[in-house]
Amino acid sequence: MKTLILLSLMMTTGTLTAQQETDVASKIITMEKAALERWNKGDVWGFIEIYAPDIVYFDPYLETRIDGLEKLTELYKGIEGQVKVDKYEINNPKVQIVGNMAVLTFNLASWTGNQISRWNSTEVYRKEKDGNWKIIHSHWSLTKPELKL
Amino acid sequence: MKTLILLSLMMTTGTLTAQQETDVASKIITMEKAALERWNKGDVWGFIEIYAPDIVYFDPYLETRIDGLEKLTELYKGIEGQVKVDKYEINNPKVQIVGNMAVLTFNLASWTGNQISRWNSTEVYRKEKDGNWKIIHSHWSLTKPELKL
Repeated sequence: MKTLILLSLMMTTGTLTAQQETDVASKIITMEKAALERWNKGDVWGFIEIYAPDIVYFDPYLETRIDGLEKLTELYKGIEGQVKVDKYEINNPKVQIVGNMAVLTFNLASWTGNQISRWNSTEVYRKEKDGNWKIIHSHWSLTKPELKL
Repeated sequence: MKTLILLSLMMTTGTLTAQQETDVASKIITMEKAALERWNKGDVWGFIEIYAPDIVYFDPYLETRIDGLEKLTELYKGIEGQVKVDKYEINNPKVQIVGNMAVLTFNLASWTGNQISRWNSTEVYRKEKDGNWKIIHSHWSLTKPELKL
């Protein structure tokens, strides 16, 4: 992603140095990108593997928030193999870090043939006791959806 | 809000005791509710006052994320006095706390006359050096929007 090079970092009240913050931000964006690339081929497990057990989740197709990895895994299993995205762009990713929590936000564009979908994305990562980062909250929404009147 | 009584708390890897986590969660939900009640009367300043300078913001009417309080204040000034919500419900609020960051998520229902709007909401709060909590990320989206085909 060329746009990843444009990564901007917000300085926060955490105790990390600027270099450490840059490293955390790069790590998190790399994780997100890897999961998204699997997702785009219909493989839902890339995300499931980096979700924490206590994840809470919003997307525009749900009546209410989903709480917990077990329920979310059931949802994802139902769409396994059905997503096919040919090309995507992560635009303007930003990582806000406070201690062991990091908020990644970006605008996503996904193309399937000539059809484009545009998304607003929030992914909140937490550094776990084993040192790995996991997503504890995910919020996907459509950018400026065209609503039925 | 009766639903606030149903507040559920996720235990996290933070160092707070369960009681301290409950106190933080209650404080944050109270702040959110106070800002929303002002918002519902057209007063946009309740939120502006609790946004951090480095807030990043999504809502469904924007082409891209808004970065920074200055730009967001401009947006809000443009809708000052225009919102009128008669009744609202915060459903199933959850607060996930990790150190000095807390993620509040809920489903919101807002009524204006007979019209109802349903929202998915993410508000990421950070404890600042002065001890006050401020919002560093806000993501509002429509719950299951009816899309034009």
